[in-house]
Amino acid sequence: MANKNMKQQVMNGIRDKVLTLDTMNQSVKNIEYAVRGPILLRAMELERELQQGVKKPFTEIIRANIGDAQAMGQKPITFMRQVLALCQYPDLLSSPSFPEDAKKRAMRILQSCEGHSTGSYSASAGIQMIREDVARYIEHRDGGIASDPDNIFLSTGASSAIMAVLNLLVSGKGKTRTGVMIPIPQYPLYSATLAEFDAVQINYYLNEEHYWGLDVAELQRALEQAKAHCQPQVLCVINPGNPTGQVLSRENIEAVIRFAYEEHLFLMADEVYQDNVYAEGSQFHSFKKVLMEMGSPYAQQLQLASFHSCSKGYMGECGFRGGYTEVVNMDPAVKQQMLKFQSVRLCPPVLGQILIDIVTNPPQPGEPSYQQFQQELGQPADMFFCIQLLEETGICVVPGSGFGQKDGTYHFRMTILPPLEKLKILLEKLNQFYAKFTQEYS
Amino acid sequence: MANKNMKQQVMNGIRDKVLTLDTMNQSVKNIEYAVRGPILLRAMELERELQQGVKKPFTEIIRANIGDAQAMGQKPITFMRQVLALCQYPDLLSSPSFPEDAKKRAMRILQSCEGHSTGSYSASAGIQMIREDVARYIEHRDGGIASDPDNIFLSTGASSAIMAVLNLLVSGKGKTRTGVMIPIPQYPLYSATLAEFDAVQINYYLNEEHYWGLDVAELQRALEQAKAHCQPQVLCVINPGNPTGQVLSRENIEAVIRFAYEEHLFLMADEVYQDNVYAEGSQFHSFKKVLMEMGSPYAQQLQLASFHSCSKGYMGECGFRGGYTEVVNMDPAVKQQMLKFQSVRLCPPVLGQILIDIVTNPPQPGEPSYQQFQQELGQPADMFFCIQLLEETGICVVPGSGFGQKDGTYHFRMTILPPLEKLKILLEKLNQFYAKFTQEYS
Repeated sequence: MANKNMKQQVMNGIRDKVLTLDTMNQSVKNIEYAVRGPILLRAMELERELQQGVKKPFTEIIRANIGDAQAMGQKPITFMRQVLALCQYPDLLSSPSFPEDAKKRAMRILQSCEGHSTGSYSASAGIQMIREDVARYIEHRDGGIASDPDNIFLSTGASSAIMAVLNLLVSGKGKTRTGVMIPIPQYPLYSATLAEFDAVQINYYLNEEHYWGLDVAELQRALEQAKAHCQPQVLCVINPGNPTGQVLSRENIEAVIRFAYEEHLFLMADEVYQDNVYAEGSQFHSFKKVLMEMGSPYAQQLQLASFHSCSKGYMGECGFRGGYTEVVNMDPAVKQQMLKFQSVRLCPPVLGQILIDIVTNPPQPGEPSYQQFQQELGQPADMFFCIQLLEETGICVVPGSGFGQKDGTYHFRMTILPPLEKLKILLEKLNQFYAKFTQEYS
Repeated sequence: MANKNMKQQVMNGIRDKVLTLDTMNQSVKNIEYAVRGPILLRAMELERELQQGVKKPFTEIIRANIGDAQAMGQKPITFMRQVLALCQYPDLLSSPSFPEDAKKRAMRILQSCEGHSTGSYSASAGIQMIREDVARYIEHRDGGIASDPDNIFLSTGASSAIMAVLNLLVSGKGKTRTGVMIPIPQYPLYSATLAEFDAVQINYYLNEEHYWGLDVAELQRALEQAKAHCQPQVLCVINPGNPTGQVLSRENIEAVIRFAYEEHLFLMADEVYQDNVYAEGSQFHSFKKVLMEMGSPYAQQLQLASFHSCSKGYMGECGFRGGYTEVVNMDPAVKQQMLKFQSVRLCPPVLGQILIDIVTNPPQPGEPSYQQFQQELGQPADMFFCIQLLEETGICVVPGSGFGQKDGTYHFRMTILPPLEKLKILLEKLNQFYAKFTQEYS
């Protein structure tokens, strides 16, 4: 018993509890997380009230607070769910209602699981085969620039990887405490994590007048100002932007890389929206690719971690918590520390890892699931037909969906203006292609 | 550029990297995690060497470093995997090869997912319906003592819940830094997490001479000694013990609760092995149940968090990372903080949550999957028959497996010593039961 007063309180049965708002970890208390904050809690209450029949000026809550496609009714991609179901319940491998390519993927994945089961722990950095698939996928994305599977760490969504890398980076006390530059507006995972780790948040403001662009002059301003009270060591960039949606140009990325290099900063590139670029003229450039193409001294010196997830993109599989990070120029000894850090958490959820594998290894042309997979990416069947026709024969026609057609029917529209000889060749080619296409995809 | 020397280094291309062993977070560097430490890394290397054909005095690595039943060849429970496959790929709901009770469970779970899909995020504390199922399960386990779903937090394995609660508890500086009492030997998650959070580890030693028992005198010794250099605030108990396997008696648990109460400690009960008690005379008592039965002032005052997981027990589904904690007497404001803390991490993997739901809501007598489910728990069919016979008719016979029988055949052995009248009744009852049993389970 610590003192007499406490003893008395105990006897009166009115002593304080051990864990209270006052005694708890104040860094955790300082966290703010708007995406799931008081508004969402109130929305959940309202949903319960509506269920209980309380009258409101609306009949349902529409949740636009978080990027959660399937909660909003987006259908999962059939092929992904088939492979997952097969991995989970391998009795289905003998079922005729699953396509052969889904079975092939499932068997390959099960082979790489301990005890051939998704119910066992994986290696802490993730299943080795999946790390290799991810590296190949990145190489393909980046036009052949090498990616090393040993630099890939699978994770519990991108969030846990971002937190792990930040955790490695935060050190020092008082004026030497690590400062981390984040964009404003930002995805609040960053500010929340910095509060939790008691790191110094350095705000740089995106330029709303220029489509939320990223100005290096503003980076410089923020950095210089921060140097007075902390040691800036990390620059976080979200590209494509969340919540702004802006997509950085290649020149802009180069300027950011030069800045990070010159200022001796570790660069964290949150690229989870890399598959969600729609605006005409916009194109996603990965920081890794630009860095490597800039050559010496940047390519060999700048330390970079890039993050991706299966929660966004066309798949929107948030509930499985799959993600990964690729680290570049990371000290091997620090990579060992990162691995140890992940080990304490045992391993990322195996099903999330499997989803990442399917993302990196989707159905290929000629495989039975290819057509449906492409269609489910939002491409109508007639559009798919016309693109394939163009690619394979050079014949350019227009899909019927551009004109309107009954659901479930597909058309294309062609002109018959070419001269007779050309028209003959055209119809022959078309005939052959149609036969091949229907054989391949039906 | 910070200074001239650095500029020179940059020009020479030999500058230091930002993140090195020296600059990194020293608390992370101090973590040790033996379960997945250097031995495992070496084992993984050896496996690769064996695959490459290198000759060794052995032909395979047998991994006994971590409790991972399915990696060692244990088969998953069919019913669990059926429900998971159905949830994942709901097209299977119309397949005749899945039992009706598995479909019913899957539909109920999908109803409770946002957008009726496992691919959406859940609430951060877990799917509400599953929290309610867990609370009911705990009530049943504890003989009817109430459990509030609002006190249940689903998690990414038990590990993430243990880390979250510890994170809430750690505060102070120097001599007021939080001290956490842990058993030695312990499961190294505890020492690793305390190193990561820079909390003070207080060792209390289990008594090997008394089957690794937990002596309150040793708790007292460790506590008094620690008070000189930190503020002890937390007592962690692992029951059943890991790695020791010891199971605490009810008296022992009461003594621990009194100690924690008197010393004003928050009690963390790691009970993930609660379904793995085999020794004759041993029985698992949950800390929650004992605490509640001790009454005032303990039941209303002592703060407790208890942890469970789907990685252990009969299911051994480690790869799904499902777990939960039940908190008792936690300040509502602190519960809000815990919820916020989980929110930053978005949500635990939904498939792990579903597994937790099936654990709490297994097939019931009369449902089509009941017999197979029971059998897969290691109960031979003849044992199951004899137990049901006894429960329903009072007739006590002996299963054939006790005597030996051919694989796939099942027998029982009965004596014919009862008097003729009794024997007649017995055979009639047996006849009726047999008819009912075979109708129900075949």
